[in-house]
Formats: sequence, C-alpha cells, structure tokens
Amino acid sequence: MAIPAQSQARVDMPQGFLDRLEQRFGDQLQTGEAMREQHGSSESHYVAMLPDAVVFAHSREDVVALVRICSEFLVPIVPFGAGTSIEGNAAALRGGVSLDMTRMDKIIAVNAEDFDCVIQPGVRREQLNEYLRDQGLFFPIDPGANATLGGMASTRASGTNAVRYGTMKDAVLSLEVVTPQGNVIRTATRARKSAAGYDLTRLYVGAEGTLGIITELSLRLHPIPEAISSAVCSFDGLDGAVDTVVQSIQCGVPLARVEILDSLQMRAVNRWSKLDYPEAPTLFFEFHGSPAYVAEQVVTVKAIAETNGGGEFAWSNRPEERNKLWRARHDAYYAAVNLREGAIGWATDVCVPMSRLAECIAETHKDLATASMPATILGHVGDGNFHVVFSIDPDAPEEMREVEAINARLVERALAMEGTCTGEHGIGLGKQEWLVAELGDAVEEMRTIKRALDPENLMNPGKIFSL
Amino acid sequence: MAIPAQSQARVDMPQGFLDRLEQRFGDQLQTGEAMREQHGSSESHYVAMLPDAVVFAHSREDVVALVRICSEFLVPIVPFGAGTSIEGNAAALRGGVSLDMTRMDKIIAVNAEDFDCVIQPGVRREQLNEYLRDQGLFFPIDPGANATLGGMASTRASGTNAVRYGTMKDAVLSLEVVTPQGNVIRTATRARKSAAGYDLTRLYVGAEGTLGIITELSLRLHPIPEAISSAVCSFDGLDGAVDTVVQSIQCGVPLARVEILDSLQMRAVNRWSKLDYPEAPTLFFEFHGSPAYVAEQVVTVKAIAETNGGGEFAWSNRPEERNKLWRARHDAYYAAVNLREGAIGWATDVCVPMSRLAECIAETHKDLATASMPATILGHVGDGNFHVVFSIDPDAPEEMREVEAINARLVERALAMEGTCTGEHGIGLGKQEWLVAELGDAVEEMRTIKRALDPENLMNPGKIFSL
Repeated sequence: MAIPAQSQARVDMPQGFLDRLEQRFGDQLQTGEAMREQHGSSESHYVAMLPDAVVFAHSREDVVALVRICSEFLVPIVPFGAGTSIEGNAAALRGGVSLDMTRMDKIIAVNAEDFDCVIQPGVRREQLNEYLRDQGLFFPIDPGANATLGGMASTRASGTNAVRYGTMKDAVLSLEVVTPQGNVIRTATRARKSAAGYDLTRLYVGAEGTLGIITELSLRLHPIPEAISSAVCSFDGLDGAVDTVVQSIQCGVPLARVEILDSLQMRAVNRWSKLDYPEAPTLFFEFHGSPAYVAEQVVTVKAIAETNGGGEFAWSNRPEERNKLWRARHDAYYAAVNLREGAIGWATDVCVPMSRLAECIAETHKDLATASMPATILGHVGDGNFHVVFSIDPDAPEEMREVEAINARLVERALAMEGTCTGEHGIGLGKQEWLVAELGDAVEEMRTIKRALDPENLMNPGKIFSL
Repeated sequence: MAIPAQSQARVDMPQGFLDRLEQRFGDQLQTGEAMREQHGSSESHYVAMLPDAVVFAHSREDVVALVRICSEFLVPIVPFGAGTSIEGNAAALRGGVSLDMTRMDKIIAVNAEDFDCVIQPGVRREQLNEYLRDQGLFFPIDPGANATLGGMASTRASGTNAVRYGTMKDAVLSLEVVTPQGNVIRTATRARKSAAGYDLTRLYVGAEGTLGIITELSLRLHPIPEAISSAVCSFDGLDGAVDTVVQSIQCGVPLARVEILDSLQMRAVNRWSKLDYPEAPTLFFEFHGSPAYVAEQVVTVKAIAETNGGGEFAWSNRPEERNKLWRARHDAYYAAVNLREGAIGWATDVCVPMSRLAECIAETHKDLATASMPATILGHVGDGNFHVVFSIDPDAPEEMREVEAINARLVERALAMEGTCTGEHGIGLGKQEWLVAELGDAVEEMRTIKRALDPENLMNPGKIFSL
C-alpha cells in the first residue's frame, strides 16, 4: 500500500524539545531504542516506524502539558494503547512523541443503577470486566485482543459481541478529550441519549487519535445475562454456515455472538489451542437471556442449522468451558499466523450487507485457494464482517505483493457489494486509498474537519488520510 | 430565551435573487404570505419567523441548484419537513429560503434481507411503516408526530421505542448530503458497521440542518415481533412508577416502550381521547418478542409493579386497541395544551441518568404545583427522558416569563444530575444558553466545525449556536 509522500516525511526534533520534555516529565520520558521500537511496531505486517520519544501519561494534566509543548515545537503526537491495532494506526509515521496511555488505567466510577462506568483510557477490556463481574455487569465490546478502551474507542472497535450489543460507537456515552490546542472538553453528559448539539462523541470515536487525545470515557454497561450458552457447530460448506446466521437473524433470534471459521482456520485453531473440532466450516455461537429464552433461541437456531447442512451442536455451558472456547477464538489470529514457522501475520477485514455475505465469502475463498501462503477466513458473520489472515514470510517481498493484490481484490469485491473497506480495523496507514474509493468526496469533508480542529496537523498525522 | 443579537439580523434579499429562483424553480417557488407563514411557524410557542421564499425540492438536483444559487447570493437556507419540531429548529430566523423537502417522499428501496431501506428525506414515519408492514418489517423510531425522516434525522429524534431500539443516531446507516458548497456526498455504505474514517453520518444526524441538506437516508429496519402486548398500569405515586421501570430494566427486561404520564396528563388524555383510565400516575407499556418471551417479560414486570404500588394491568393486545392506546399517547401533547381553551403549548424535555430520574421528576412535580397554568409531565421514562407541557395563554407575556423561569429550573436540575438539557427536541433557538452550560468549551469545537464546513454560515444560521 503506497503511503503518500508528503506524509512520510519525518519531523526533525527541534532544538530544546527533548530537554523541555525531560524537564516536565522526568522518568515518564523514555528515549531508549528498545522502548521506541516497542512503540513503533505492531502485531501486523507494517514495518516499524519509531517515535523519537515515548512519554507515559499519568493524568490529564500530563496530556495537556505534552500537547502544549508539542504544539509549541510543532512535533507530532501519536497516542498509544496496547499496541494491538493492525492497520498501522499507532505507528509513528512522522516520528515525534508516542504518548503511552497505559498508566492511566483507573476505573473511576461504576454507576450500577445507570449501567455505566467512568474510566481512564488505559484501562483494558479484561481488567474492566474482571472489575465489573461482582456487580453483575459486563462491558460487551470484545475485539479479541486485550486492548485499552481508549484505543478501542479510537479505532471504533467491535468484535464478537457486536451483533447483539453494537460497537464502540454504541458503547461510548461520553468522552473527555484534550484538543490539539490543549483544552479539555467533555463531549456529552451521562444521560443515555441527548439531542444537544453536534455528536462530538461519535466524531472522536473512530478518529484514530487524529483530532485529539481521549483522557476519560463513560461507557454503557449491560447486566450479565441470567443464562449464557455457547456452542460449536460444523457445516458441509461455508454457505450453509452463512445461511444459518442470516436466517436466524431474520427469525429475530438475538444472537449474542456468532463467529465463522473456515476449514483451514479450524485446523489452525485445533493445532494452536489443542482442540479436536472437525476441520470443516464452523460456527461458534453464544446465546444470552433468561434460561427459558435461551432454550427457545437454541431450538430455533438448531432447526435452521439442520436445514443448512449443520452437524451436532457441541455445547460449552460451564464458564470455564466457555472461556476456553472463546480463548481459542480470540487466539485464532495467532493460530493462523503460526500455520507456518517464522511467519508474520497480515490481517484484513471488510464488511458487506448480510444479503451479499455468502457470495462475498465464497468468492474470497475461491481467490484464496490460489494463494501461495496459508490464508484463513474468520469473522463476525452476524454483522456481515469477516477477516482474512495471511501467514507470510517476512523475508519474501513477493509474498507481500501477492497479499496486496489479494487484499485489493477483496476490498473491491466488498465495495462492489455496497460494503465497507473495513468493518472494525480502521483505516490507519493501510486502507487510505480504499477510503477514497468507498466514500469519494466525503473524505474531503473529513479533511476539512481535520484541518479546522488540528490546523498544525500534529495529532497522529498521516493516518486515515494525508493532508 | 434571549436570542443573540447578531443572529437575529434578517438578511435582505439581494437584487435578482428571487428572479433567479423563479427562473430555475418556476412553480416550485412560492412567495405568498400564507405559504411563508406556514413555513415560519411551528406547533410550539415561538413567534413566527417567516422565510422570504419557499422552494419545494423534487430531487437532489433541485437541492444542489438551490444551494449553489443561495451560496452565490449569500442567502440562508432553512430545510423544512413536517414542521413538527418544537424548539424553533426550522424557523427562518434570518429570513432567506425555506427549503420544503416534503415532495421528496419516495421509498427508493427496501432490502428485506438486510433489514434496511433507502428513502428520500420527505418520507414520513407513518408512510414508511405502512409501506413496510406487508414485508414483516418496521421502522421503530417514533417521536409521536408524523414527522419526515429527514427532519427526524436532523433533530436526532427518538421517542417511545428508543428504550429498546435506540434513536435516529442508531437508526441511520448512511446519508446522502448536499454540502454548503453544493457537492453531493454519501457518508457511509449499506454495511451494518464500519471503521472507515470519521463518522460523518452521526455528525449530520442532530446537526439540525446547519451543516448541509440531507437528500437521501439508508435506515435500519427491524422484523415485526411475533408477539406484541401493550398495557396500562396506574400507580399510587410517580416514584412507584419510575421505580418499576428502573427495576425492570435492571432485571434485563427489554421493554419495547414504557411511557410515564402524571395525573393531570391522564386527565387531559381521558378528556381529549375519550378514555376513562384512572387519573393517577400511569405507565404505558409495550412488550415485544416471541409469545413465550413476551409472557415471561410480563410476569416479571407485573411482579415488580405490584411491589411499587401498581394496580391492575389493562391490556390492549389486538392491533386496533393497541393503536388506540398509542394514538392517545401521541395526542398527549395536544390533550395537555387543550386543558385550557385558546391556549398554546410550550413543550420542553430533559434527560438524566436513570438513578436520578425519580428525584428529578419529583422535584419538577413539586415546582409545577405552584405554576399558574396547567403543566403536565410525561415521557420516555426508560431512557431517563421526560417532557413538561405547559398550556399557556398566548396573550399573557407574564405566563411566558413564568414558564421560562420554570424551564430554567428544570434544565438546571437536570444538568446538576449529570443530565442533558434536551433528550430529543434539539437545541434550535430555545436551548442555546443551556447547551453552553452543559458542554462548555466543547461548543467551541462545534463552532469550529460549523465554520469550516459552512464558512458563509448559510445553512440554517443561528440554530444550535450563533457564530
């Protein structure tokens, strides 16, 4: 994927800048190679793009101070969470400061009666759910990785529960944001809905840190369902699996999770997680509700699966079995990458209207059959969203080019079906030309907003689009 | 509510402007007093603010042409739907052109398998649902009035079903918008989720026409539930009614609708809709699901109501009974206004976290007890959102001042409880100072976006904020 030349230019650190940072941040400033390497790399295939410095924020005041200093010296800031994004979203493309938010990890308040909580952006998904469990609450958005909530908001993450509970767009009630000018704003109140002015909350959710730094989040929570059942069911073909999901949703079944994995992905999962599921197209299900309601959903879905070539349902109803099942699903990416020794992963995602999903997956599957490296399909089939994970040799540039071409065909296919070039990974560095292919002139409106709110282009510059 | 002086200035129609409009629009241009009066007035207490001309759009090309002409002559445009907004959102504050969208009322496509549809902005809520019924689908957002979908998107409308199905923020998949520069953009695809760039869809939803003109909408639809049950239940006190709702939600009951009406509002409803419910604090419920699931929800909610001083449930299960019940709820505003002969209505709304709702309603009820005009409380109690409707004498300025003071206390109360100054009516003209009280410096970010996207300030100028 070509990165526009203007954005590639690294900014030289101005004289006196690092001294000024050291003065203000002391030990919170780190400039060692290893630390910069860690903050400039990611789990995906992008080459490392190192920041010149890493600053660990402990408070909103730290963020304000850093933004003001960087604004004075015209140095870019790239906010950094768990580093689990996969489109180069947190790479320090132009150098500057990687702002590590992971030490801002306090859960400030849980308002159980209101089903919401207030947290700092460095809180991780699993940490939050462990904290909430005793109160009978949970936070549903689950992208697999144990990401920070600030990062999840910034990339508009979703994942396995989105089919029932929505994405970060739906989960965030309100944000505290430090603007590029160093002002602290609050985008909304704790009210569950509002018609008060422009929806700034939704503007910062998915902005990938290009408009400001999130320093606090209010999130919607949900009661832990009285009954939870998980099951695995394999199918004769991918189309039968997809049709089962489409028909279940059409029957009004509120599937809490429904994941598709193709045969090769199942082989990878079995190997990686030491399981022995059939190596066939498979659905992982989860049902939430009262015991009677879950039982009713299961009857409906089993009947639908049967007419679509589905086999027996293998149930995982005890919490530890369920956790094992979803751990295997979450590790599917690593499982796929490790189909080859020494390989690195390249994950991509598209999302299409449900009516086109079977066709989109079938054509993609056909295309992957000719690929010279292992490539698996898995995804959040209830949203029309799926991933392809390629296991590539990092020392073989021709493989990179081959994947680029397959990825291009995949995105073109999704766009032709009125879909989007990314359901949940974001644009980052990798999908900028596809964003334009998808939304055309609307991208100019985005650029206008970016220029207005961040006129010096210091907030994660060169991501989503170049200016 | 004081309107800042700068915004009040009417724009004089530049020479040649109306001729140019006539040339392009012929009969679609109307400048008669009655037509301008109709487009400058509303159902609420605001004084009429007449446009200089009314243009009826038949197509996006008409909208583009009008925007370009107005941009050339620097004349404001105020988009106009059903005229049912109640915070002066569509008043022609600075004159100019009222752009009537009601003739763009085509349902372009219904994609039943994808649970979505594509429509023009002048389509009305009831028209859409009549069209969808045969396909087993419905569009849930229901603000009561038979509003246009374009208007509902622009004010981020919600209403009785929001507790289960969300607001227009959740219902809109994608918009086609004509920008202030006359470009046509599409904010998203038909995919159910996307992480592709800034969420322009949510930016235009709730922008009250200040950033561009919506010319097409893709909307999420839902399957008509297999079973629907509606019931009315009266309570000893308002707090018992509110507690019933809070506890039901905490038990995970997915209430489809739950509306509160105080005793005076019930008297008004009985008189206006010729019904004979007890004149006591009352909840209107609706339950959706499979027959077994609805039955289960009902058992839970009845038990909770009983412990909170609730009486018998009066059921309306046949469609015509249900329609009668919800028609009465929708007419509650007119019922309240008509408690006095010759009166006009002033409706306001706030929304607070659920844990504060009982307290907020109780304090408001106490405050209203001293009011010199009839004033009722009703609202979407499952969201923490409620309305006060005042029935005022249009010839008594002291009543207007009294309501202003009560409204101010109401909004201050809601803000002190971490709520919002408007759950669903929007800011329009009436709540601009409260928007600032609620969100402070965040309003400056909104202004920056407005200035960047509409630098000449021609799109519904003076609404939400003045520049």
